[in-house]
Amino acid sequence: MTTYSIAVIPGDGIGNEVVPEAQRVLEAASRIGGFSFDWTHYDWSCERFAKTGAMMPADGLAQIRDKDAIFLGAVGFPGVPDHVSLWGLLIPIRRGFHQYVNLRPVKLLAGVESPLKGREPGSIDFYVVRENNEGEYSSIGGRLYDGLDDELVMQQSIFTRRGCDRVMRYAFELAKGRKQHVTSATKSNGISHTMPYWDERFAAISKEYPGFTTDQYHIDILTAHFVRNPDWFDVIVASNLFGDILSDLGPAVVGSIGIAPGGNINPEKDYPSMFEPVHGSAPDIAGKGVANPIGQIWSGAMMLRHLGEEAAAGAIEKAIEDVLARRDSLTRDLGGTAGTRELTDAIIGALPSSAANAA
Amino acid sequence: MTTYSIAVIPGDGIGNEVVPEAQRVLEAASRIGGFSFDWTHYDWSCERFAKTGAMMPADGLAQIRDKDAIFLGAVGFPGVPDHVSLWGLLIPIRRGFHQYVNLRPVKLLAGVESPLKGREPGSIDFYVVRENNEGEYSSIGGRLYDGLDDELVMQQSIFTRRGCDRVMRYAFELAKGRKQHVTSATKSNGISHTMPYWDERFAAISKEYPGFTTDQYHIDILTAHFVRNPDWFDVIVASNLFGDILSDLGPAVVGSIGIAPGGNINPEKDYPSMFEPVHGSAPDIAGKGVANPIGQIWSGAMMLRHLGEEAAAGAIEKAIEDVLARRDSLTRDLGGTAGTRELTDAIIGALPSSAANAA
Ligand SMILES: CC(C)[C@H](C(=O)O)[C@@H](O)C(=O)O
Ligand SMILES: CC(C)[C@H](C(=O)O)[C@@H](O)C(=O)O
Repeated sequence: MTTYSIAVIPGDGIGNEVVPEAQRVLEAASRIGGFSFDWTHYDWSCERFAKTGAMMPADGLAQIRDKDAIFLGAVGFPGVPDHVSLWGLLIPIRRGFHQYVNLRPVKLLAGVESPLKGREPGSIDFYVVRENNEGEYSSIGGRLYDGLDDELVMQQSIFTRRGCDRVMRYAFELAKGRKQHVTSATKSNGISHTMPYWDERFAAISKEYPGFTTDQYHIDILTAHFVRNPDWFDVIVASNLFGDILSDLGPAVVGSIGIAPGGNINPEKDYPSMFEPVHGSAPDIAGKGVANPIGQIWSGAMMLRHLGEEAAAGAIEKAIEDVLARRDSLTRDLGGTAGTRELTDAIIGALPSSAANAA
Repeated sequence: MTTYSIAVIPGDGIGNEVVPEAQRVLEAASRIGGFSFDWTHYDWSCERFAKTGAMMPADGLAQIRDKDAIFLGAVGFPGVPDHVSLWGLLIPIRRGFHQYVNLRPVKLLAGVESPLKGREPGSIDFYVVRENNEGEYSSIGGRLYDGLDDELVMQQSIFTRRGCDRVMRYAFELAKGRKQHVTSATKSNGISHTMPYWDERFAAISKEYPGFTTDQYHIDILTAHFVRNPDWFDVIVASNLFGDILSDLGPAVVGSIGIAPGGNINPEKDYPSMFEPVHGSAPDIAGKGVANPIGQIWSGAMMLRHLGEEAAAGAIEKAIEDVLARRDSLTRDLGGTAGTRELTDAIIGALPSSAANAA
């Protein structure tokens, strides 16, 4: 029997509530695929930062490098600025493990209320493929005339050919099993070096995939199309910043921002990939047992798919969709009265009976 | 009688149809305020670029520097890349005339269909104040290892204290006559030099306006709030790139992207300001007499307000709102059958009778 060794980082706030619940679902689903898990816990978090001055130990990456995957909850704690958790944990892992794809599905599901008028479940169904290692997220820059009226700051964005090509190829490979339609997010009219280069590489990589439909939109009008024409898209490839924007806007448009999953993926599998929901640590509702575990559970399904366990991944996704559509066990953010544990139990109960009974 | 001398730049495509119609409305409204116009036309456009290799003459800015305002249609022509019209016309005017504010109203109007569920006319009503001169729109950058596998490109963003402070103060002054609520768009968790600096200046300028409500959101979640909670906002201040995104997304959310106006404003009035609709030159429908003139007319109202003609500006805006709510003279993009000219006539007819009769 295959055993997957997983680094579990619950993080802060509701991360500590939804991660153990998602582990229960993953354990149940493992019976479908006939595999098992070996979980190792790490207390890396903003809470740890507040106590020790570091999000993770200095040799953190070495400690988890040989794991099959990383299962992350959420980081964020009142009083600890966001950039600490980003630059002290997320970015070192994303870059250190060459997780150069950030993947987020955007899907309008039955039972989930979209803020848009007149859209049917299934009519919106696309992926945002975000470049996750370089681009606009750089620490290069500085300040001139500190404290004076003439003060100015500069920031450098860097796009490499290797960085563009590999994430674009990932997008095309993903579209291969779908509608073979890839959309590129750009802003080459305003941003005159990096974005024309992005367009150039998109044109070059597109040539490797004859027969695919390709298009590109400037990011301003693309966000407008997310609202007006979200049914146009299949796979969208975007830079680190534009992908960050689109992968929050997309879930907002289908009403799923509280339940959306995400993966930080190393497609070559030479390092572990990391799976985490889109939502944050929600300190306001932490500790009350009311947090919605679906984003974490769905991220677990993405992790299984990445590990090659398609049957178990699909079973979890179907169970989530069934429970959402039934609407009888939902947490209060979705208009229900269930707690974290009851919603999780409902999802486990909706798995194929072999898995659910054994759980 | 005050005479305003206006530089008229219809540009390309439907710009040539909607600008003259908007001039008719402005002429009619001038009777309300008891002022007149002196119009001078310029053929600056992508069409001119295609013929002569330049969007405008070398001394273009000098030719229009003494005008009271610039009334622009739309630039863009099949075969001429966007960055040509931007860097050959829009950016030189925006920067040369210190039009450091790009102002766009976002308002849900009766008679206009929003893609969002359950929103009442008037319930969404805010301004996007975009920094219009510096930031991410820079021409500074370059390429290393041209054509090789190691190829990379860099792009520098520059934010000055003067540039941040003046646009932020404009936002607070605008909020003074409204709900005194200013929201800042940031991304200081990911973009580690310019955006923390933006936050620092926003905190400093906020202190100059005690009693105002202020908040800030990272651009990713802010775009989500545009869809989920557009009623939260009063005035939003954003960098050049983030403002560009928000001022397309905002109109999309209220269904007005085809009719939304915009101003490139020099608040000190030491150089002319420029007013132009959000929509483009729409080459696909150009020459057919079916283009919607409202964005251009509404931009004309913004121009009048900037010139101090509040009564005439308000009268045009009210006429637009009345005609939209009546829904009997709309162009086909709004579900009607009227042409450009009929819709314009309806708006002129809806002006206070003194103005409409004289027209
Ligand atoms: C045409 C384009 C370059 C321009 C911009 O990004 O500034 C437009 O989107 C705008 O908002 O005025
Ligand atoms: C926490 C934040 C810095 C992060 C990012 O921008 O990458 C988040 O928004 C995300 O999308 O994972």
